[in-house]
Formats: sequence, structure tokens, C-alpha cells
Amino acid sequence: MSVLVVGTTALDSIKTPYTENPRLLGGSASHAAVAASFFGPTRLVGVVGDDFPTHYIQLYKKHRIDLTGLERIQGGTTFFWSGEYEVNMNNRRTLETVLGVIEHWQPALPGLYESTPFVLLANISPQVQHRVLDQISKPKFVIADTMDLWLNIALPELLKLLKRIDCLVLNDSEARQLVGEDNVVAALPKIHKLGPRYVIVKKGEHGSVLSGPKGLFVAPAYPLHKVVDPTGAGDSFVGGLLGYLASQKSGSIETNLRRALIHGAVVASFCCEGFGLTRTTKATKADIKKRVRELERLAKF
Amino acid sequence: MSVLVVGTTALDSIKTPYTENPRLLGGSASHAAVAASFFGPTRLVGVVGDDFPTHYIQLYKKHRIDLTGLERIQGGTTFFWSGEYEVNMNNRRTLETVLGVIEHWQPALPGLYESTPFVLLANISPQVQHRVLDQISKPKFVIADTMDLWLNIALPELLKLLKRIDCLVLNDSEARQLVGEDNVVAALPKIHKLGPRYVIVKKGEHGSVLSGPKGLFVAPAYPLHKVVDPTGAGDSFVGGLLGYLASQKSGSIETNLRRALIHGAVVASFCCEGFGLTRTTKATKADIKKRVRELERLAKF
Repeated sequence: MSVLVVGTTALDSIKTPYTENPRLLGGSASHAAVAASFFGPTRLVGVVGDDFPTHYIQLYKKHRIDLTGLERIQGGTTFFWSGEYEVNMNNRRTLETVLGVIEHWQPALPGLYESTPFVLLANISPQVQHRVLDQISKPKFVIADTMDLWLNIALPELLKLLKRIDCLVLNDSEARQLVGEDNVVAALPKIHKLGPRYVIVKKGEHGSVLSGPKGLFVAPAYPLHKVVDPTGAGDSFVGGLLGYLASQKSGSIETNLRRALIHGAVVASFCCEGFGLTRTTKATKADIKKRVRELERLAKF
Repeated sequence: MSVLVVGTTALDSIKTPYTENPRLLGGSASHAAVAASFFGPTRLVGVVGDDFPTHYIQLYKKHRIDLTGLERIQGGTTFFWSGEYEVNMNNRRTLETVLGVIEHWQPALPGLYESTPFVLLANISPQVQHRVLDQISKPKFVIADTMDLWLNIALPELLKLLKRIDCLVLNDSEARQLVGEDNVVAALPKIHKLGPRYVIVKKGEHGSVLSGPKGLFVAPAYPLHKVVDPTGAGDSFVGGLLGYLASQKSGSIETNLRRALIHGAVVASFCCEGFGLTRTTKATKADIKKRVRELERLAKF
């Protein structure tokens, strides 16, 4: 079944201790849509300016991503982010953000998109996430990703969103912040009380934790010898997991979610091995299957 | 088969944001020996002063720990450590350390101990670890634990020790420090080159990683809603894992190590739920089995 992804479509300039890469294809929706596209039909909802390079459009198309929902604003500037990573590749700081066309964006969904069964509200303002959700009729499963920025500046809208979604994805420090609880495991039931039936906590290199009606699932990350650029890894994780979930013809969501997290972790591992989307877009379905089998071996006891 | 544990036998005063507990039974050997004792016969090598409370001796005895190797120095002071944890229970700082009888300790093993097949050199100076190992004839499996202190002040002795052991246990920041490598996964082959066939990296609440001739094993931690006091969790982990390993009548060490890490993680989870050894000593073999089964369910995909 189809997946709809809404989020940012951006140009990222990324500095690491080793190198610098200007104006890469980035943004939560770009990473998540490419990740989801490995598993089945994927629809993108995003906005770019006329400075958005044509070869990035070609790259989306190479992944057979439906771009009917990608607006291109004449005279507008594409959302731009630049950041710098420290040696350990975990800490990063933002150098510059130019909102551009994203600032006053009011997404209007193409008619065909309105019946998409699997919806990923990738990281973007809760206002945009609400607006997209308003235009979808009876989705089967809705996941929302978020970040600390929205907890800080748009908490009421985020809390309203939590009542409308099936699954919230956030990292461990955001989980703690959201419910004011130091222990992540103790934070989970408190997050469920805010709405979502499923909560997934991302822990980067330490894997992820799924909490649902049948309890917890502790998922490993794929161990990497080298992290080139972790930007977009969280978006790739959630895109890959929803893409996998939508592609499953049998089994309940509860049952399929565990393997969905594993597939998300594998797509995220490719993301980390190159700048921006450069490594992810070179991965094949066979590469993904191979790493999933490796993770099975790595985690078995 | 029997396990020998050498390490510190100490009195710990532990402060957390919630409470303060003076002169608890602590030390790497106390935690590791109690953890190992759940699985089979355990021999302790340690030293205390005559200030060491009799009820702590009784507590060792309750766990059927062989105390022939526990020296009691008349007029001596037991090794004392006091520390304070921050709210997140991950960061701690040492308030006071009194080495006491441990400072010039030269352990002499009882004759019966010399043929112990499974040896745990729990965290203590590499000099003491060497000295104990010198007195054991043809051990089947030797694990050494260590800490950043020894990397900083006794690196040559530690490096010599690595040539004599089967398995090194250390935490992720120590693994990075030991071989000067930011990425833990990339650090592992470099640590193997220093000697040990197996390396186990402890990551606290994020679980642990085993590296051996047949590759990696990524082990989850048992998820806890509340951490009361993590002091000794690493010692409990390694004690539990070696105790389990020694208790297995079939299967190779390579095969049994994975489940050994899981059993270690479970004993460590009990350790974290109370101050010092107070919760661990209340656990039963049935409690351990129950949490192992839970971890199986939590990690399956």
C-alpha cells in the first residue's frame, strides 16, 4: 500500500571534522521518502523554491517517488540548513537556517493523495502536520516524527496532534522532555496517555525502543565501523519503517512493527555511511535484505 | 564449575538526588561474586580491615561464597569509596576514596583456589590481577574487567594483562580511550589485536556488545522504570555472565557467551534497583529466569 510523506525538502550544508559538503539534498521528507521508496509506492508532500536543483528532482524520480505533491514556488528560496558535527559524530550545532518557502507554506494535497493509507508526518511544524492530516480521509496508520524545537515553540499544537496519530517517534532526550521524566522507560506510559497507541524512541547508535499495547520491543542499531554523516538518519529510520509496514500483505501492525523497526534501522545505517542521501540512494533492496539478515544474526541469543 | 573472583571488597557511601546511604557493602568483587553465586560455586579473593562489619561476612555466606581467600587485616581499614550521582543516574563523581588495606595488598591464594577453571579479574589494579593470575594453573577461561583509572595510571601493566586473558570487559568510553578510536565498533578489532579473543563493551542502559571470532553480538539491557543506584551494575553484569558461563554443562564458550551476556544484564538490572547489594541479594534464581524470558520476548523479531 502507498505511503504519504510530508516534511521538509531542503538543501543541507554539512561540516564534519573531516570534510564539508555544500547544498546537499536534505530535509526530513527527502530522507524519509527515499527510505520508504525501497519498499513500495511513496508520495511526497513538500515545497521548494526555483533554486532547487533539477538533478535532485531526478533523484526523487529515480526512486519512483510521486512528486504530484511537491510544490515549486517561483522566485522562492528552498529551505536551507547548515550544521557542523563534532568528532564523535553525535553532537552537532546549527550554523545557519533559512526557512525560505517553508515559512508560510500551507500544503494543499493533490486529490489522489487524500486516500493514502499510510501517513508519515515527518519532522516539520505541527501546524503543517495537522493541515496535511486534515486532508486525508480515514488513514490506516499515521506516524508523526518531531524534534525538540517543536516541544519548545509549538507544544500546544504538538499535544493536539498526539491525539490524532497512531504512533509518535522521538529521540530519548525529547521523550524525557515531553513528559518531564528522567527515565525513558518510565516516560513511555506517560507519552501513551497523551494519545499515541505506539511510541518509538530513537537512540541513534544504541538502537530504538518500541512501546505498544503488547509491551516493549528493544531494537538494535546496525553497528557501523564509520559514521560519515548522521544527518537524516532518524528520518530514514522512520521512512524505512513505515515503508516496510505498508508493504506487508499479512500480519497485524502490532506484529509487523518489530521487523519494521529493524528495516528502518538498516536504511538509517546506509544513510550514516555517506553525506546527505549519497549512500542511501546507492543502496539496493538486496543490500537492505543482507543487513537485515546480519542484524538477525547479531541479535539472536 | 567453580568461579574465582578477585577484586575490591569495599564499603561504599552513595549519595543520589533522593537519598544517602552510608557504608554499604560494595566493591567490584562483592558485586561480581554475589552475581556469580546465583549460578554455582564462587570463590572470593579480597581483603578487608577489622572494621568490616560481620553482617557483610554473613551476607557473603548466605550466598555460599567461599571466603577462604578473603583476608582480614588486624588494625587495617577497609577500602572506602563515596560518590554522588546526578539526577539522570548516569553521571557520578567521587567524593572520597580511602584505599586502606588494599593499598599494599599482595594476594596469596589458598591452595584449593589454584585450579579454579573460571577466573574473573574484577576491577582492581592490573598488578593485583597479574598476581592472582600467576597463582592459577591452566584456567579454562579468564575475564578481566577494568576502568579508566588503570588506563590512565597503569597502562603498561594493563597491556601486559591483555596478552594473558581470554576476554576483556570495559565500557564504551574506555574502549575508545584504550585504542584512540572514536567509533566503538571500529575500536573492537584494534582491542583484539592487543590480545583478548573476546571483548565485551558495556553501555549501561543501552546494553552491551560482544565481539569474538564469530563476529558481534548486540545484547539489550533489561529496561528499568527506575534506577535507584547503578553502583556495581557493571561488576554484577560480568559476575553474572561468568557465573552463567561456568554453570553450562554443554555447548562451547562461543555459543554460551551470548546467553551469558543476557544473564549478566539481568543480574545487573537487579543491582540497579536498590542501593549497593540490597536488591541483588533479594533476587532468586526464579526471578533471574523470569527476567531472562522477558528479555527474550523484548528482543525477538
